[in-house]
Amino acid sequence: MSDDQRFGLSRHVTLPGPLRLDGGVLLSPVEIAYETYGTLAPDGGNAILICHALTGDQHVASPHPVTGKPGWWTRMVGPGKPVDPDRHFIVCANVLGSCMGSSGPATVNPATGRPWGMDFPVITIRDMVRAQAMLLDHLGVGRLKAVVGGSMGGMQALSWPATFPDRVDAVVVIASTARHSAQNIAFHEVGRQAVMADPRWNGGAYYDGDPPAAGLAVARMAAHITYLSEAGLTEKFGRRLQAREAKSFGFDADFQIESYLRHQGLSFVDRFDANAYLYITRAMDYFDLAEEHGGLLANAFRETRARFCLVSFDTDWLYPTRDSRAIVHALNAAGAPVSFVELSSPFGHDAFLLEAPELNRVVDGFLRAGR
Amino acid sequence: MSDDQRFGLSRHVTLPGPLRLDGGVLLSPVEIAYETYGTLAPDGGNAILICHALTGDQHVASPHPVTGKPGWWTRMVGPGKPVDPDRHFIVCANVLGSCMGSSGPATVNPATGRPWGMDFPVITIRDMVRAQAMLLDHLGVGRLKAVVGGSMGGMQALSWPATFPDRVDAVVVIASTARHSAQNIAFHEVGRQAVMADPRWNGGAYYDGDPPAAGLAVARMAAHITYLSEAGLTEKFGRRLQAREAKSFGFDADFQIESYLRHQGLSFVDRFDANAYLYITRAMDYFDLAEEHGGLLANAFRETRARFCLVSFDTDWLYPTRDSRAIVHALNAAGAPVSFVELSSPFGHDAFLLEAPELNRVVDGFLRAGR
Repeated sequence: MSDDQRFGLSRHVTLPGPLRLDGGVLLSPVEIAYETYGTLAPDGGNAILICHALTGDQHVASPHPVTGKPGWWTRMVGPGKPVDPDRHFIVCANVLGSCMGSSGPATVNPATGRPWGMDFPVITIRDMVRAQAMLLDHLGVGRLKAVVGGSMGGMQALSWPATFPDRVDAVVVIASTARHSAQNIAFHEVGRQAVMADPRWNGGAYYDGDPPAAGLAVARMAAHITYLSEAGLTEKFGRRLQAREAKSFGFDADFQIESYLRHQGLSFVDRFDANAYLYITRAMDYFDLAEEHGGLLANAFRETRARFCLVSFDTDWLYPTRDSRAIVHALNAAGAPVSFVELSSPFGHDAFLLEAPELNRVVDGFLRAGR
Repeated sequence: MSDDQRFGLSRHVTLPGPLRLDGGVLLSPVEIAYETYGTLAPDGGNAILICHALTGDQHVASPHPVTGKPGWWTRMVGPGKPVDPDRHFIVCANVLGSCMGSSGPATVNPATGRPWGMDFPVITIRDMVRAQAMLLDHLGVGRLKAVVGGSMGGMQALSWPATFPDRVDAVVVIASTARHSAQNIAFHEVGRQAVMADPRWNGGAYYDGDPPAAGLAVARMAAHITYLSEAGLTEKFGRRLQAREAKSFGFDADFQIESYLRHQGLSFVDRFDANAYLYITRAMDYFDLAEEHGGLLANAFRETRARFCLVSFDTDWLYPTRDSRAIVHALNAAGAPVSFVELSSPFGHDAFLLEAPELNRVVDGFLRAGR
């Protein structure tokens, strides 16, 4: 294959649609920014869709065009990795509602010629999945060998067999949940209120001026705490002070954890759109796969013949192991084949993005078992 | 006794000081707003100091003058309760740095004749305790039968025997900790950044105009999540929607948890000063009783002969049971008498403020055992 195929092709497509959204709106056209790695097999049987998390993007295994950082999941996707461009045709698309090239509040509303802002329709996880299916149609991928995702990516992965039961053979759901809890919603609501409290948000119409960076930074800081474990924070930062040797008795960042959080907030606003943050957190809060299927989660999986692999992390308090276990119980009730493991990690929810040889072994073994 | 003595006397005193603060500043004068209930016994042996939490006040058992709500701890303090004005002389003072009448950023800086704002010196938990001791001197209370507090009140209660080992006979510490963890600091830092991100904060000089209500509301929302348990939130709100029957596919408060949190934020800003929130959270983040005593917590308790009672709640993830256990271990190492119980409650950290008959039995038994 060419280097382009192996190292990723950054692409953008405008599909005519319309895409009928869960909220009732017909979205047209539908823009999708995506990357592919590898080559689709003649029988079409080697396609794997990678689904990204809240603030993720399509650059799963190739450098981010803005930050220049390596792809966000090079530990899982790449030559010699469980998802391997030498064996698989890998697709990763920026989700609907996001800000890396797919249709979202920052893209142009064809009716006005200006950015949608808050006129963009509220979308759901299932809408994201429908947009991905449209992209796969465009790419000539009828059926997925697997769909793989962590966190919000896991919600999409779960939603795939429920929405397109005949189009996916295997589903990998990592550090995720089938429904957002009250506490999950609460943290997201804090973030949204932080954005909306920033006068620069201006009802979402800030694209001609300065964005609500201060509010978005606060939102990111609050969310970031939920991605880490209490023990991990203690190990990494504890009560250690910054370079200065004593407390300042002021309000600068005295503790390392303070400057770390401030950095997380500030660096985030350079790469993410505040309105997109509102829309995607809303989609996650709306996510309740059981509710979409008569209130019984097992019903979501009765039509599919896909195999499932569930992975949770013991220190993840955002989507704790019991959330994965509830999915496993529903899959059992639906008679779907499922393997489930809780891995041990000090890193909380973020563990799925970090070096985790056990995670790689689990995913690799699961994907190979289905050949 | 007179009704005034039984139902609380709202008082304010300006003490000349100076009070030497941990940060090195000499504060003078020192204003203290406080309430007393009951009568000091002729031998002075029935005085109990109640210490309040972050956003608490001196109105422990009498109505709040602004909100008109009952005192914040009428379940613990009042006729027939474990702390009883018919038997005890009860003192509760607004902490230094707060905004209910004691010296803080909203009070007048005598050097300028204008509110201190961010020129107010950064204070510590120990500074709060020193100010309380000055008040007790003023009231003619030499020795405390007991000091009792929950959450930040528990930090003050712990700091009392460490700072004034000969002035306190018994210490009750509920749902508290001897040091703020990295995660504790992180949540407070989010709150401070939310306040400071509000343009109305204006470097703390907002007393002539509108206060940074939007930022303070976000800070309160984030903090409020940490006061409740995940299970409690699920039980109380789950994913239940507001009165409307279906999702709005908009950004109004669809879920009950959203409107509850918004209400918590909005009602808070009517009764609390944003700068005071910055100062008090800073004091809590600075709190590390071991650090003040050579790095070994047991050293904090070697001089005192006080008895200790520690109570934690099993669903409190802000100051979890392991924090109380660490204190108990230090007390054991120091040879101090201590009783410790973990109570079961679905309500998380807030449990100490709610109806908890077991808590009352524990505190009542402990206080009576010392007569």
